[in-house]
Amino acid sequence: MISKARIKWIKSLEMRKYRLQHNAFVAEGPKLVGELLPYSAPLYIAATKEWLAQNIHLLGAAKEVDEVSREELERASLLRTPQSVLAVMPIPERKLDTPSLQNQLVIALDGVQDPGNLGTILRIADWFGIHYIICSEGTADVYNPKCVQSCMGALARVEAHYCNLLAVLKEVQMPIYGTFLDGTNIYQEELSPNGIIIMGNEGNGISEEVRKLVSRRLYVPNFPAGSLTTESLNVAVATGIVCAEFRRRSFS
Amino acid sequence: MISKARIKWIKSLEMRKYRLQHNAFVAEGPKLVGELLPYSAPLYIAATKEWLAQNIHLLGAAKEVDEVSREELERASLLRTPQSVLAVMPIPERKLDTPSLQNQLVIALDGVQDPGNLGTILRIADWFGIHYIICSEGTADVYNPKCVQSCMGALARVEAHYCNLLAVLKEVQMPIYGTFLDGTNIYQEELSPNGIIIMGNEGNGISEEVRKLVSRRLYVPNFPAGSLTTESLNVAVATGIVCAEFRRRSFS
Repeated sequence: MISKARIKWIKSLEMRKYRLQHNAFVAEGPKLVGELLPYSAPLYIAATKEWLAQNIHLLGAAKEVDEVSREELERASLLRTPQSVLAVMPIPERKLDTPSLQNQLVIALDGVQDPGNLGTILRIADWFGIHYIICSEGTADVYNPKCVQSCMGALARVEAHYCNLLAVLKEVQMPIYGTFLDGTNIYQEELSPNGIIIMGNEGNGISEEVRKLVSRRLYVPNFPAGSLTTESLNVAVATGIVCAEFRRRSFS
Repeated sequence: MISKARIKWIKSLEMRKYRLQHNAFVAEGPKLVGELLPYSAPLYIAATKEWLAQNIHLLGAAKEVDEVSREELERASLLRTPQSVLAVMPIPERKLDTPSLQNQLVIALDGVQDPGNLGTILRIADWFGIHYIICSEGTADVYNPKCVQSCMGALARVEAHYCNLLAVLKEVQMPIYGTFLDGTNIYQEELSPNGIIIMGNEGNGISEEVRKLVSRRLYVPNFPAGSLTTESLNVAVATGIVCAEFRRRSFS
């Protein structure tokens, strides 16, 4: 049984304002929740009898647990098709320590707006062993339910930091990469194993001011090179291709 | 002014059944519509006075045009935030001629479900000069509004064919590639400039039967190789990385 107050609390977490206020976010579904629980103790869990029976070992540190019917879960869920478990997780307190970025490959997001893209980018970071994502204040929130659901367990392993991106980029002593239609062919460019890869807004790309700080302008060539095709790749796809290329170099 | 019958017709095109019945799909927004019009004549256009004034040169072959207010557009639109123009476009009649796939790099989709992923994959195909996408019957519809809106103009240049994928794969005489967690490192594998790249369903990957026809099993290595990270990449991101790698070979 979930109380009305609980449902109100869960629903409020759909909005960033309340996520910040409560320091909490919602994760749903057995796969995602199963991936997150080993990393941190949930503030609250609502789950079906079946899920609870199978996952009792994961519940050790859970503060509050409700056994619920599917109908109740539907009332509380932020998804269209709720699945057996909903967890309210704490937002970890993290402080960006700029020197810790050194000797790392880092993704910087400059105004990425779509939470689905953001979640996909977190998954990419996770896949390619990129531990830090630094985000401009204007970037979508990684704890947005759409991002949480699309990033799978990556949220537990990749640290996303919101910061004054311009200030951080000025502070670090690392090569700063960005993709541009007039950049140099990424396959023919020397890529350092460490550096910051900046990905820009879906519509407008990298902002004017951040652009000035990019030291290495890259381009993922289309095919046949220079042909008139679509104007650009989706930002998550471009991030995937660029990260893959950085990591590919370690194999050759 | 849009008639009620028109609005009903437009709204019906949100469903595949009616798209097939009317042989038509909906595209919205000045950018997308502007990209599609040079390739085919719309069946119908509803647009604001401003859009019509600026795009009169594109309207030559339009069968029916309504000048509408923003409020009217909102009533007809399939989007949350309609933008100045809505076009109903004809679905081109296309027959898959298997021999035309020879000497091509082709993407085959085996049950990709999310229309957003599908649209992103069309954009990738367009970027990398891949003209044909062959889809299993169980793959989402490329004329789904969500796919149409996310694929940008790619829909005009890339041909998507729905077919008995198994039968086509058996018929073609080309290398068939697929990605698997136990495949060989794609960077160390010989890749032919022509072939079929199969991408599978978001949750289940490539289906059992299609799997048997894959002649070259590839793997996009994570980093550090073999580390325990996220289980997989998003299917559109994986498609992007694999296609980029095929095309990269032409630069070296």
